[in-house]
Amino acid sequence: MTAPVVAVVGGGQLARMMTPAATALGLHLRVLVESATSSAAQVVVDAPVGAASDADAIRALVAGAAALTFEHEHVPNALLDELVAAGTPVRPAAHALRHAQDKIVMRERLTELGVPCPRWSRVTSAADLDAFLAGGEGVVKTARGGYDGKGVRVVRSSDEVTDWLAAAADGTGAPLLVEEKVPFVRELAALVARRPSGEVATWPVVESVQVGGVCSEVVAPAPGLDPATQAAARDAAVAIAEGLDVTGVLAVELFEVPGPDGTRVLVNELAMRPHNSGHWTIDGAVTSQFEQHLRAVLDLPLGATEPTARWTVMANVLGSALDDPTDALAAVGALDPGAKVQLYGKEVRAGRKLGHVNVSDDDLDRARSRARAAAALLRGEPAP
Amino acid sequence: MTAPVVAVVGGGQLARMMTPAATALGLHLRVLVESATSSAAQVVVDAPVGAASDADAIRALVAGAAALTFEHEHVPNALLDELVAAGTPVRPAAHALRHAQDKIVMRERLTELGVPCPRWSRVTSAADLDAFLAGGEGVVKTARGGYDGKGVRVVRSSDEVTDWLAAAADGTGAPLLVEEKVPFVRELAALVARRPSGEVATWPVVESVQVGGVCSEVVAPAPGLDPATQAAARDAAVAIAEGLDVTGVLAVELFEVPGPDGTRVLVNELAMRPHNSGHWTIDGAVTSQFEQHLRAVLDLPLGATEPTARWTVMANVLGSALDDPTDALAAVGALDPGAKVQLYGKEVRAGRKLGHVNVSDDDLDRARSRARAAAALLRGEPAP
Repeated sequence: MTAPVVAVVGGGQLARMMTPAATALGLHLRVLVESATSSAAQVVVDAPVGAASDADAIRALVAGAAALTFEHEHVPNALLDELVAAGTPVRPAAHALRHAQDKIVMRERLTELGVPCPRWSRVTSAADLDAFLAGGEGVVKTARGGYDGKGVRVVRSSDEVTDWLAAAADGTGAPLLVEEKVPFVRELAALVARRPSGEVATWPVVESVQVGGVCSEVVAPAPGLDPATQAAARDAAVAIAEGLDVTGVLAVELFEVPGPDGTRVLVNELAMRPHNSGHWTIDGAVTSQFEQHLRAVLDLPLGATEPTARWTVMANVLGSALDDPTDALAAVGALDPGAKVQLYGKEVRAGRKLGHVNVSDDDLDRARSRARAAAALLRGEPAP
Repeated sequence: MTAPVVAVVGGGQLARMMTPAATALGLHLRVLVESATSSAAQVVVDAPVGAASDADAIRALVAGAAALTFEHEHVPNALLDELVAAGTPVRPAAHALRHAQDKIVMRERLTELGVPCPRWSRVTSAADLDAFLAGGEGVVKTARGGYDGKGVRVVRSSDEVTDWLAAAADGTGAPLLVEEKVPFVRELAALVARRPSGEVATWPVVESVQVGGVCSEVVAPAPGLDPATQAAARDAAVAIAEGLDVTGVLAVELFEVPGPDGTRVLVNELAMRPHNSGHWTIDGAVTSQFEQHLRAVLDLPLGATEPTARWTVMANVLGSALDDPTDALAAVGALDPGAKVQLYGKEVRAGRKLGHVNVSDDDLDRARSRARAAAALLRGEPAP
């Protein structure tokens, strides 16, 4: 048995959903999990418990591994550089990851690359910020530590972020940046995979529906997307993957905004790992983002990214009135034998991502209503 | 965390391939494995080591389980009845399983049910057998213990099975039966799932290509199959599932033979579990046989069985010249980005089922040649 070992940092649902692809390809997954009951720990045989910041735990994790990868961006970069120096392929490498760890670093680099971004500025004082806002609305973000709407505030005045400004000034909080509040038509996501030898592969660009800063639904492909806009979104994703030397899956969240000729796209956020906007690929594409990520980090040829259905809609299960969403499996099955349920094995908490449902259908409205209905049942609500 | 526990006896590739579906549905798999390095043990967290014949091991396995199921038919029936009496749902139950354990019991019952079978007879002496053969060819089978061509001989005379006759007579071997050597056009397989509350679901009938008694290739759906023959095959599978009170997946292997109006089908073998002839469903149907088996044994509503592509061809990887078939992942990926590889984590031995490849394509010939080429690479041979 000489199966390649892939080491993964992080025991959440993203590592969990790598397991079917690893099993299929005969790979050995070794996942550093936060606790023995983490989402991934429930389904990964080789799942040592440890913190992403624990250098010894990470060093043990990579022993004999063909590659190290991540489901989040919280491993100290100096440690990653040390591992690379000692011969472990780290994918993506620290020099790429820092763009997903720090939004100021990311904006600076994307601006250099000529990738379209919202107008933005680093903020070091209230005066800076108010000058940028000029009486209008803007989006203030902490450069580090934000996710799912955390670390983001829409403001009209520096008075609304005095706490963040003070924390940034005294070093207890992250530096701040401000971005224009983009008048977007909708949000899109472009998913790309890149392997160290340079091959890239993209999936169709999707529409991502956010509620309160959290993804609630993804439609693949993005309905009615202009081919030129789709090409611009894919080109931006590929330019970022290549420009930042990303290896593995890269998700680029985009705003679709009105332009002089049709619409255009502006880059919102990056994630250098499989991403919620790509969960539809598990049931709706020849190669899922999880299989592709494993192929990419092992520098294997990338898989085909064609959709397997006209439309696939992914609906997140955010919170549940049930003790466990598995209690609704019978109801979902009775309602819709074609709904593909994915549960993450997490304890129920209000608003928590507990799972998702994929539905593929020739009819978009039906796909959307089916996915929503199944997700509602898993949340313990009646199907709409 | 109240995830239902499904207990499975047997740690081979069939239990292994239940893991993606169990993970997706948030179920807890507990698998009794032959050894800590068994195919399933590599990817199942809760995988106690023990023998299927060890009553204590089986009793421990079902503690708190919502259902007990199998990837083979070797648990003693008396023990299964004891578990049922103690309140564990055993699916399929012993009264169904015995038809998959004993070919004489199976033939008797199918004959009672009016399911079309080859002409057959129990054999208790050389004279019996020679009378059946009447100078022609026949197929002698041991009633128990045969698989993948083992326990089957094509003979013209009782002289060719004197060892089996002696063993059957003195009780050291299984009883024997003989069947007519059917002049079949090709072999088919009909896959059905049935849940305890009675719901059944069938997938399209497939063509199964056997080499030396071992499945080498499956084409879904069976090309050019007459609708009436397809209906007859499905009807036979449903009649058997219902008549024998099977719960879970049932695979019915069939001979397609010339009939007075088109072709007709005769039942060859049964398997009461996911089966090699259904591996195409992992990548080629809305619900795989493994997810369906889990749903069925938990008495959940059955999933949709529609194919997701025009054609899906499954090619087995039987033996390999490589140390490990994972060594060919790069070559397969370079040759065919759409080939879906499934490896079983088994040590290489001549002729051993080490994995399979599924390829979906709009063109049948291309699907077949693509699947064969990928499987050849995994066997360490050049792509044909």
